[in-house]
Amino acid sequence: MKKKIVVIGGGTGNFSVLRGLKNYDVDISAIVSMADDGGSTGILRDELGVLPPGDVRQCLVALSNSSSMMRSLMNYRFENGGLGGHSFGNLFLSALEKVTGSFEKAVEEVGKILFIKGKVIPVTTHQVRLKMILNNRKMLEGEKEIYLSQEIDQGYKSIFLEPYAQANPRAIDEIMNADLVVLGPGGLHTSLIPNLLVEGVCEALQKSANKKVFIVNLMNRRGQTTGFKVSTYVKEISQFLGGDLFDYIIVNNQQPPEPLLAMYAEEGELIVNDLIGEDRVVQAPLLGEIKEGSKGDLLKRSLIRHDSKKIAQELMKIVHYI
Amino acid sequence: MKKKIVVIGGGTGNFSVLRGLKNYDVDISAIVSMADDGGSTGILRDELGVLPPGDVRQCLVALSNSSSMMRSLMNYRFENGGLGGHSFGNLFLSALEKVTGSFEKAVEEVGKILFIKGKVIPVTTHQVRLKMILNNRKMLEGEKEIYLSQEIDQGYKSIFLEPYAQANPRAIDEIMNADLVVLGPGGLHTSLIPNLLVEGVCEALQKSANKKVFIVNLMNRRGQTTGFKVSTYVKEISQFLGGDLFDYIIVNNQQPPEPLLAMYAEEGELIVNDLIGEDRVVQAPLLGEIKEGSKGDLLKRSLIRHDSKKIAQELMKIVHYI
Repeated sequence: MKKKIVVIGGGTGNFSVLRGLKNYDVDISAIVSMADDGGSTGILRDELGVLPPGDVRQCLVALSNSSSMMRSLMNYRFENGGLGGHSFGNLFLSALEKVTGSFEKAVEEVGKILFIKGKVIPVTTHQVRLKMILNNRKMLEGEKEIYLSQEIDQGYKSIFLEPYAQANPRAIDEIMNADLVVLGPGGLHTSLIPNLLVEGVCEALQKSANKKVFIVNLMNRRGQTTGFKVSTYVKEISQFLGGDLFDYIIVNNQQPPEPLLAMYAEEGELIVNDLIGEDRVVQAPLLGEIKEGSKGDLLKRSLIRHDSKKIAQELMKIVHYI
Repeated sequence: MKKKIVVIGGGTGNFSVLRGLKNYDVDISAIVSMADDGGSTGILRDELGVLPPGDVRQCLVALSNSSSMMRSLMNYRFENGGLGGHSFGNLFLSALEKVTGSFEKAVEEVGKILFIKGKVIPVTTHQVRLKMILNNRKMLEGEKEIYLSQEIDQGYKSIFLEPYAQANPRAIDEIMNADLVVLGPGGLHTSLIPNLLVEGVCEALQKSANKKVFIVNLMNRRGQTTGFKVSTYVKEISQFLGGDLFDYIIVNNQQPPEPLLAMYAEEGELIVNDLIGEDRVVQAPLLGEIKEGSKGDLLKRSLIRHDSKKIAQELMKIVHYI
C-alpha cells in the first residue's frame, strides 16, 4: 500500500515540499493554515467574507498535474485598476466559495480542474484571525502584522487564534491515518504555529503513531527569529505540540554563496545547526539552484530557497525506512 | 453528416438560440461581436488592454455541458470593493488571454473546462471600437454609448468600427462551410451590425450558398428602433449585407400579457410584423415563460424574452428541410 504523507503548513514553505513529493508514488495531503490575511487574500476576506484562498492556492498549484499554462493562470496577478494585486487563483477559489457556499467544495473543484495529486485540506473551516501579544504588551492583529513585525524576537506572551477554532475533521483524519507527518519549512509564527493553535491538531499529532519530521528553514528572519538555532525552533514548536514529537529533523548543510548572503544580510542570517550528532538529525545539501527571474510569485520571494527535489529525496529515504 | 449551423451575434440574444440548439445533433459555431465595451468588459478592456470577454462568456455558458455550478460560476458577479461588478467568467477569459497572449487560446481553454458543444469564435481578433455619427452630427463612441442613446431612431449617418478590422479567418471558414446561418435576435446596432462591419463577413455571407435566417427581436427599444416593423429591420440589415439575403425570417406571433407590456412601455413596444404572407416568414409563438427571479444575469434583463426551446424547434424545422 502507498505510504501516506501529511504536510502541515501554509505559504511558500509548503510549496517546495509538495512540488517535490508530487513526483513519487505516495499519498499526499496538504493541511493548510487559515490565518493568512495579507495582500489579495486579505482584501478578499474583508470585501467578500470568504476564507483565505492564498495558501490553499499555492498548495493546489504545487500538486497540480495540469499544463504549465493552467499553473501560470492560477498564479497570474492582475496588474492594474481595481483588480490590481489579486491573483487569479484567489479569485477562482473565492468566487467558487460564493457560488457553492463552501470553501472546501471550492478547493475540491479547483483541485479537479488542476488535476491535483492528493488532497488540499483547510486546517479549519472557521474564520479566524491570528493574534499575538508581545512582551512589551503590544498586540499584533493578523498574520500580516505579525509577519511584518520586527519585535517578535524580543519575546511574546501569547499567540492565539480569535475566535478559538475547532479543526476540520478531515484534517484530523488525515493526521491519524498518516505514515509520516511533515512540518516546515515556513514562517514559524505565521505558517507553522497557526496550524497547531487549532483545537484538535496537537492532540491528533500526540496520539497518532506516525513518524514526524521537522524541516528547518534555511534562514532566520530579522526581528522574527533572529539568533534562532535549530534547537530553538524545535523547542518553540514543542511548546505548542505539548512535547518534542519529532522523529527526524532535516537541516540544510550547504553554504550559499557569500554575495547572496550579503544581499540577505538585511533580512536575516543562516540558521546554525546546534543539534549535529543527534541521530534524528538529517543533514543534507538542500539549496535550490540560484536562478534569476524565476517564474511565479512564490519563488521570486526568496533566492536562497529549498530545492524541492532534494527535500523530497530526503523525505523519501525516511519513508522507505519506516 | 451533421448539419452545420453558424449563429452570428453577441450579447443576450445569442444566448437563447445557442442554449436551444445545444440539445440537437447539429454542429454549432457562434461568431461573436468584439465591440462590447460596457460594464465589466469595458473596465477590463481599459485596464488590461484585453479583447472584450463578456459576449464570448455568454456564448460559452450557453453551449456549456458542465455542471450548473460551473455555469453559475462563470456568470457570478463580485459584489464589493475593487472587484465589484466583474463577472468571474470575464476575469477568467482576460487572465487567460494575459497568460497565453491570445484571446482565441483563452476562449478555447475555457471552452474545454466548460465542456462546450461546438465553437465560439470572435468575429475579429483586432481591438475595435464601435462608433456612430448621428444625423445631428453627434458622435457616439463605443457600444455602451450607442446602447444607451435615445436618439438613434432620429437617424444616423454612419456606423463603423475604428480601426477598420479584418475578420478572423476562422469566422469566415465557418460561414463558408455552414448549412444555415442565423442572425438575431439581439441589439440591431450593438450586437448584429457590428459583426457585419468587419471586413470579409458580408462578402462571405454573399458568396456562401447556405441558407440564412433572421430571427426578429420581440420588442423595439425606445430611442433605438422606435416604430421599426419587421421590414424595417430586414431593410436596415440588408444595407450592410449588400442585399436582402434572408431565406427565412422567424417572427414571434404570441401576445405577451398586457400588464407586462405596460411594464415595458417605458422601454419600448412590440414589433409589428408587416411581412405576413411572404413565404419565407415563419410565424410561431416564441415567448419564454414568465418567471420572476430567474437565475443568471442574462435572463434578469428582460422578462419578455425568447424561449430557447421554441426558437430551436423552429430552426430545426428549417434544418430538416434544407
